[in-house]
Amino acid sequence: MRLTPVSDLFWPGDERAGDLMTQESWLAAMVAVEQAWLDALAGAGVAPGSASLAGLVRGGDLAELATGAESGGNPVLGLVAMLRDRADGPGAAWIHRGLTSQDVVDTGLVLCLRDVATRVRSELRAQAEALVVLADRHRDTLMTGRTLTQAAVPITFGLKAATWLGGILDAAAALDRLAFRAQLGGAAGTLSAARELAHDAATAGGQAVSLAAGAAERLGLAHAAPWHTSRGAVTAVGDAFTACTDAWGRVAGDVLTLSRPEIGELTEPAGGGRGGSSTMPHKRNPVLSTLLRRAAIAAPPLAGTLHLASALSQDERSAGPWHAEWATLQALGRRTAVAASQATELLAGLEVDVDRMAATARAAWVDLTAERGSIARFAGREPDDVDKTADADYLGASAPLIDGAIARARTWLEDHT
Amino acid sequence: MRLTPVSDLFWPGDERAGDLMTQESWLAAMVAVEQAWLDALAGAGVAPGSASLAGLVRGGDLAELATGAESGGNPVLGLVAMLRDRADGPGAAWIHRGLTSQDVVDTGLVLCLRDVATRVRSELRAQAEALVVLADRHRDTLMTGRTLTQAAVPITFGLKAATWLGGILDAAAALDRLAFRAQLGGAAGTLSAARELAHDAATAGGQAVSLAAGAAERLGLAHAAPWHTSRGAVTAVGDAFTACTDAWGRVAGDVLTLSRPEIGELTEPAGGGRGGSSTMPHKRNPVLSTLLRRAAIAAPPLAGTLHLASALSQDERSAGPWHAEWATLQALGRRTAVAASQATELLAGLEVDVDRMAATARAAWVDLTAERGSIARFAGREPDDVDKTADADYLGASAPLIDGAIARARTWLEDHT
Amino acid sequence: MRLTPVSDLFWPGDERAGDLMTQESWLAAMVAVEQAWLDALAGAGVAPGSASLAGLVRGGDLAELATGAESGGNPVLGLVAMLRDRADGPGAAWIHRGLTSQDVVDTGLVLCLRDVATRVRSELRAQAEALVVLADRHRDTLMTGRTLTQAAVPITFGLKAATWLGGILDAAAALDRLAFRAQLGGAAGTLSAARELAHDAATAGGQAVSLAAGAAERLGLAHAAPWHTSRGAVTAVGDAFTACTDAWGRVAGDVLTLSRPEIGELTEPAGGGRGGSSTMPHKRNPVLSTLLRRAAIAAPPLAGTLHLASALSQDERSAGPWHAEWATLQALGRRTAVAASQATELLAGLEVDVDRMAATARAAWVDLTAERGSIARFAGREPDDVDKTADADYLGASAPLIDGAIARARTWLEDHT
Amino acid sequence: MRLTPVSDLFWPGDERAGDLMTQESWLAAMVAVEQAWLDALAGAGVAPGSASLAGLVRGGDLAELATGAESGGNPVLGLVAMLRDRADGPGAAWIHRGLTSQDVVDTGLVLCLRDVATRVRSELRAQAEALVVLADRHRDTLMTGRTLTQAAVPITFGLKAATWLGGILDAAAALDRLAFRAQLGGAAGTLSAARELAHDAATAGGQAVSLAAGAAERLGLAHAAPWHTSRGAVTAVGDAFTACTDAWGRVAGDVLTLSRPEIGELTEPAGGGRGGSSTMPHKRNPVLSTLLRRAAIAAPPLAGTLHLASALSQDERSAGPWHAEWATLQALGRRTAVAASQATELLAGLEVDVDRMAATARAAWVDLTAERGSIARFAGREPDDVDKTADADYLGASAPLIDGAIARARTWLEDHT
Repeated sequence: MRLTPVSDLFWPGDERAGDLMTQESWLAAMVAVEQAWLDALAGAGVAPGSASLAGLVRGGDLAELATGAESGGNPVLGLVAMLRDRADGPGAAWIHRGLTSQDVVDTGLVLCLRDVATRVRSELRAQAEALVVLADRHRDTLMTGRTLTQAAVPITFGLKAATWLGGILDAAAALDRLAFRAQLGGAAGTLSAARELAHDAATAGGQAVSLAAGAAERLGLAHAAPWHTSRGAVTAVGDAFTACTDAWGRVAGDVLTLSRPEIGELTEPAGGGRGGSSTMPHKRNPVLSTLLRRAAIAAPPLAGTLHLASALSQDERSAGPWHAEWATLQALGRRTAVAASQATELLAGLEVDVDRMAATARAAWVDLTAERGSIARFAGREPDDVDKTADADYLGASAPLIDGAIARARTWLEDHT
Repeated sequence: MRLTPVSDLFWPGDERAGDLMTQESWLAAMVAVEQAWLDALAGAGVAPGSASLAGLVRGGDLAELATGAESGGNPVLGLVAMLRDRADGPGAAWIHRGLTSQDVVDTGLVLCLRDVATRVRSELRAQAEALVVLADRHRDTLMTGRTLTQAAVPITFGLKAATWLGGILDAAAALDRLAFRAQLGGAAGTLSAARELAHDAATAGGQAVSLAAGAAERLGLAHAAPWHTSRGAVTAVGDAFTACTDAWGRVAGDVLTLSRPEIGELTEPAGGGRGGSSTMPHKRNPVLSTLLRRAAIAAPPLAGTLHLASALSQDERSAGPWHAEWATLQALGRRTAVAASQATELLAGLEVDVDRMAATARAAWVDLTAERGSIARFAGREPDDVDKTADADYLGASAPLIDGAIARARTWLEDHT
Repeated sequence: MRLTPVSDLFWPGDERAGDLMTQESWLAAMVAVEQAWLDALAGAGVAPGSASLAGLVRGGDLAELATGAESGGNPVLGLVAMLRDRADGPGAAWIHRGLTSQDVVDTGLVLCLRDVATRVRSELRAQAEALVVLADRHRDTLMTGRTLTQAAVPITFGLKAATWLGGILDAAAALDRLAFRAQLGGAAGTLSAARELAHDAATAGGQAVSLAAGAAERLGLAHAAPWHTSRGAVTAVGDAFTACTDAWGRVAGDVLTLSRPEIGELTEPAGGGRGGSSTMPHKRNPVLSTLLRRAAIAAPPLAGTLHLASALSQDERSAGPWHAEWATLQALGRRTAVAASQATELLAGLEVDVDRMAATARAAWVDLTAERGSIARFAGREPDDVDKTADADYLGASAPLIDGAIARARTWLEDHT
Repeated sequence: MRLTPVSDLFWPGDERAGDLMTQESWLAAMVAVEQAWLDALAGAGVAPGSASLAGLVRGGDLAELATGAESGGNPVLGLVAMLRDRADGPGAAWIHRGLTSQDVVDTGLVLCLRDVATRVRSELRAQAEALVVLADRHRDTLMTGRTLTQAAVPITFGLKAATWLGGILDAAAALDRLAFRAQLGGAAGTLSAARELAHDAATAGGQAVSLAAGAAERLGLAHAAPWHTSRGAVTAVGDAFTACTDAWGRVAGDVLTLSRPEIGELTEPAGGGRGGSSTMPHKRNPVLSTLLRRAAIAAPPLAGTLHLASALSQDERSAGPWHAEWATLQALGRRTAVAASQATELLAGLEVDVDRMAATARAAWVDLTAERGSIARFAGREPDDVDKTADADYLGASAPLIDGAIARARTWLEDHT
């Protein structure tokens, strides 16, 4: 099932996201939801049997489904008709019975988003590993600490890498907290049709809830109360993805500045011809950082759209806010996966000009140690006491801070093998 | 040249935008820019001749170009190589000489955006015409004026249509003010390579400017100073498109509320099976308004991204902000075109339940005329004076306000035949 | 210390937030940070003693500090000068030694934000309690389930209250996850000046870290590595506050719709003259829901600004992004506190018209049970089987879903006594 | 009338906006609206006379009005009661008769926004004048053209100033296009109460429209149809203000980069102690650019909130979207005025290090002229032809482009004396 081109002239690098959140992937995920529900119906003896839905819809059906989606407001009406028409066996007629289209749309999206999160987490692992190496290797690599663009006090590149690492781990923690919940509630979140099918008055709805729990389990998702117009789980995904692009954006900003020729402390990894110019043969543009910064700029408003859709939710299903989520999640999901891959490549191959860092810092040494002088004078010490300290480079607590970041990373990495 | 599916499961109705701002359209527009520049070079005698670029790149080239776009940071490097390789004639080697990739990317986008604006304007015409009819036909159709959700004073549906119309005309005015400018500045906006090619010292750069002006004219675009990092023309497009989705969003909000069964004053046009439910056979959902509201919710953050990209512009070409514009413009452009078409359909077929409007208003008549009573008492008039006025329905200046809106619309329509 | 008016013509209800995040509160919090640091210096024997900073700066100093803040880029330079000038005792000269202004600005903001979170959590408790009552009391209160504005299947108002409750608890969980971290890193996050003061080479920076940990503990904040340009903790606060306004916005949207006179199922609590009109004596506008919806619309873009500031963080201190956070956090913080209070009032006094809910549902009964009929027919049952079920009102699993929400709320309430 | 502190610890520099859009200014503007309407009523003979409202409400009334504004949903109810209570003469009882509170709120805001626009335009004049000087003075000041952070081809600082100027003029054009419209429509936009007061059936509403037109004229505002839920004029203000902050943000970004010590081509104007550090005596931080960038980052989401409020407008007055506009406009308005003043100061005193620009460019000369070499070789010329051209510095069309920008500025300046 392949139709959507997995590359995008408007978003270079898009192919890195592969099948994540393509139209085909969402379609396949929606079919998986119908399958899990049908299996749950059959497993509970409500339906006389199941039916295999594998391969029943193909990429070639997308255009028809998408067109029908406008008429129906979403693509499920057409999908169910196709599946019932094409499936064999006693369960065919039972497809989708008890569900509503939002159940299928939402749970399908959750499956796709979980795939994105899994991919991103794996990239974050690789980034954390690369940063542990950088932080450790460059723990004594003297460089200029810069605040408000100006020279402040000395740092080491290892410390900078450690603070990048802290940002990556914060983003990973946000991702780790995500709960991926199935949405199985029926027309208005009461599971009414499911209970009608179960037709077992004595259980007072309990069996319908069990059906939903069972289908969720088959999909490997958390079971939860229907959330058709309670969208906190959706906004949490957007926030976590944006926390990732924030962390990468910060790294990219540093790389872009520090790879300016006048500074020249960092250089992006050289790829085959990457960063060339259409007219200037000498140029080697920092393309990865540029594209990461692009993602970091574009992500927050998309996460904001999800919050707004949540805030405007109404009734038992929203007319508009819900529909605004789909493409927003797709863009945010794919772009986060693309940026994750680019960030890994950037960090894994980052070139550090240790000599230039030192030379620039030493050239600004009077400024960089002005604070030390003023503190020493304040404390009543002689200037030449300075040279007698172990911290001749005035690096403060850089060493234990680096150690702390590395230790935090190792713990997280071990917990996420 | 066709590859991108012109339908989108994630944005039902997407196919209404047809070829507007597809990858193929942008690619074709970029080729048109190269053609215009090459023709200008040849026309000025700088190049020995031109070459026809028509049909040299195809949809099948998109994947290769998109993949290459990540490496080069944009798709032009690969496009130029393809064109030079495939073109015949003395001009082939002159393709792109004097330009920079941002020139081609930006001017190509401007051509695409102009096509969107043309389409949207034509839909606005149809909407204005429909609203003139509604405002005129229902100038005396009594209905409840509602403020903060509660009954306020009487209005007519014609007046509501007239205020919708005012919003549409304001949006049209924003669109009319857009200038579509070519971007032709060379590597850093100096037209240095163009001047080098022209090699005519005496003109001190003037001939290079003439080349740019000539190419702009061939494309039917305004000639302007290079705007590589001065993006006001881009944000203006985003603002104008969003002004349109705002105006439609407001209409959609009214239709969604007034078509609630408990109110029932408006009904969306019935389409073939539109608005059906996967489980509830009786339902007729207000799908057009729902999808319009979706677009209205999602647009402002995208326009905001364009402003942000503008605000973060730096140097002679930006590393990231510029790149964030492309997909943002595509999404905003296509969605605006889709919504334009849906809004036309909604307004052209809107069903008005005149009797229900009147019945609801009359049932709330005591409330709706409470203001009248208090004003009359204040002015020292007797209650039964009211019945002697010509404005027994307390409609105030509705009539001249409707006339004013219709007159404004007619003027605009005549100016935009 | 009082100067800023705790009311705001531009944001009615602002006074509900009291002293939270006023200029005075932030100033007091910054003084508390300086105090904790000074005490830590003294406690560790680095400084010869502390000094009491209580009452040294007053509201009357605000104008001078604010004016100086432009010149210095932030208000700390002026504040430190004032404190050193006014404090008595051996510690006076030691004020701020070892810190940088961002340490004071950020940790002061964190203290203010924690106060907001505490207030909001207490309101969420009250809301959860009110919703437990509503969900339980109205577990059998039949009403129309509405999707895409149209009648779908029956629900009960208790179920609606239970889904509101679910949203509130999700927001509370987001709030509970927040970590309030002190920012104590010195000029470039190395704690260099602190180490210089400690002047104990053998500890290789360890004592400086201990000083920071000690000051954090005195403030009741978490100790963490410096996060001057790693702003995940800030964005998390914005996201959590917005998760709250989202949840309230959803409730407000339902109340606004359901209190329309044509529906009339809910009414806002009557307050002394609340909701009056300047010209229409009969009107009782849903003011609380209106103002809640206002907050819900305005919050997501502010949270987005925090993400953007995070993504654009650079160097060891950012030039611009960081500065954009302060007023954004203030607006978001105060408004969230205001909305929290309004939401509590709304939920605690919400009037439910049980009879009208039932009447509207019964009037739409054919539509509301169309799904049941089609499911029953599909399952091969006779229409009159329906009346034999215990679920004559077709409420599905509403009962266990309500029970589940109430149980979840009780657990959370017990955990947060 | 003064209470709101015209300085803000959370937004350093706020006092530059003076009285613009303070609570007092808005209150005064709303009183002016009531005055104009009352005068119009009296002038038309509808009211028996007017009354002077000058000085009737004071800053000390703000707290009471703001508190009452929550109850009434807006501050007008309380304001009208105060005015009627305190005014003398036959017109006192006629205050506000015929208006609705939204008329007063909106028209008052429009008056405040017009004041902001006037102030900003005057700053834009000063900036354009400064940039004309910079562009002209530095038309031959060689510097490195930078794209994607890397050296591209040579430019002059005059050309950079000219492109900054182009951005400023685009923003000014956006401001010039704004229409400031009075909002005078009565409870539901029908002018019903005004007509009732006029009580002249024969005119069929015409006299009410004349009253509105007359009041608008007294305020110096455009007369237009009521726009209670048609908010294009509001979003246009937000877009224009943001176009300004975009243009300044771009300048600030360039200054921040070019004033990095490793580049050192530009320096912010030295002010009395501006840019100092709390711990590092040598530092001179680029405070103006930092604060400008802050404004540029924070503005787009606010403009987006206005669009969203417009898109969500409903009925004859919106419940929530409208209320979200007020504080958003205040923040956007004041901040734009602050930034306008800071940008003027920055541009008027910008220090240009001509020698360092030249030295850096010459040091990168091989890279900066790589394009020239490749173009020359392509065109079949000898390398040493280069030295024979008048454009030995490969500056392309910089001269005519600078001339064009200056000419455009002069025309605009002359049109806006």
